[in-house]
Amino acid sequence: MYQLFYAPGACSMAVHIILEEVGAEFELFAVSVANRDTQREPYLSINPKGRVPALRIRGEAKVLTELPAILRYLASRYPEHALAQSADPLLEARITEWLAWLSGWLHSVGYGLIWRPERFDPDPSHAPALAAQGKRVVEAAYQDIERALADTRTWSVEERFSIVDPFLLVFYRWGSSIGFSMRDRYPAWTRHAQLTLQRPAVQRAMAREGIALPVEACAALSPHAALLPPPVAL
Amino acid sequence: MYQLFYAPGACSMAVHIILEEVGAEFELFAVSVANRDTQREPYLSINPKGRVPALRIRGEAKVLTELPAILRYLASRYPEHALAQSADPLLEARITEWLAWLSGWLHSVGYGLIWRPERFDPDPSHAPALAAQGKRVVEAAYQDIERALADTRTWSVEERFSIVDPFLLVFYRWGSSIGFSMRDRYPAWTRHAQLTLQRPAVQRAMAREGIALPVEACAALSPHAALLPPPVAL
Repeated sequence: MYQLFYAPGACSMAVHIILEEVGAEFELFAVSVANRDTQREPYLSINPKGRVPALRIRGEAKVLTELPAILRYLASRYPEHALAQSADPLLEARITEWLAWLSGWLHSVGYGLIWRPERFDPDPSHAPALAAQGKRVVEAAYQDIERALADTRTWSVEERFSIVDPFLLVFYRWGSSIGFSMRDRYPAWTRHAQLTLQRPAVQRAMAREGIALPVEACAALSPHAALLPPPVAL
Repeated sequence: MYQLFYAPGACSMAVHIILEEVGAEFELFAVSVANRDTQREPYLSINPKGRVPALRIRGEAKVLTELPAILRYLASRYPEHALAQSADPLLEARITEWLAWLSGWLHSVGYGLIWRPERFDPDPSHAPALAAQGKRVVEAAYQDIERALADTRTWSVEERFSIVDPFLLVFYRWGSSIGFSMRDRYPAWTRHAQLTLQRPAVQRAMAREGIALPVEACAALSPHAALLPPPVAL
């Protein structure tokens, strides 16, 4: 039914998680971003944008690209899981608002500057300045995420797991990978990551991508900690 | 019912056009990006992100931000105009795909590098390199837009005007403003801009923002040209 082109631990993991959540029939095709497989054939013929994720849909000539579009499409195809649907258009809009900001600002600009400086300035001698600015962008955005999750809510939008939540888990991991001490600095987000990690669909997708969360996120911290799966499974 | 915080000719113009299209009751509040009003009080208390557009919705404490979210929200609120709705989730996803790419890549990165280099690298001596790269990003994206519009379609997604189309008109204008000879280089997109300009809602919004399109876009070019409104009205 679906073929997902992904890179392990990339933002495509959010799509992988949602495919697991809805119980869709899908195949996975790994594309290495590190080896620049996304920038050459045969991948460019599949997705001329040279990015992951891309979702091939049975009967559809062109793959679907752009994380917010793929996530929302899957949510619409499996409305019984209510991963983006609501009778209230404003709640749906808040989901779109999160996705647009996470994807178009935090990922595209913040992490882009850190990991893909050549997209912004081909002069390699400018890369350190770009990376430093990227870290500032990420840091400011992470404070906003922490603030948003630090109210009484369980999930990012109201009291229901949505397509935003696995995307937040991706950024939680990335924060660790650029050296942020996530558990110390972002307790509300850490609780959110722990809750997300409890979901069997999340565990299946991460295991299949060979992705682990840093132990700190799995350690006892919140009242929910006792419910956590054994860290080895991740 | 709604208050739109906008800057004349900014991407917020797409929201303004859709408010006119659906016949919503709304008030406009201009915020000058050039004077950096978006970066200080009182605007930062309204929208801490310091960007336009922001939509205040009656009865809702927090403004709605992010262009794709605002456009989609308005489309959902006024489903009778079918500006984003379809029985086919894939068509809706194609709309989201356009918006995510236009907003999160072309605008955020391409035009960001040209007009807001300090977001990427605070060193002013690097600004020319960033702007040059921004132009390359914009140019590549504009070729993709032209290619997409150059098939037989009338509008950007199937045969129906959607929330994507006024956003494309914003980029058409911006292309002229950074020196691209839009009519010569992008004939299909020029035809699309001309068609968009024929819509009374578009004309009202542009007139109210004091925004004109370059004369070239209004000149005779396509079979549709005879249907164009008089350029003076814009």
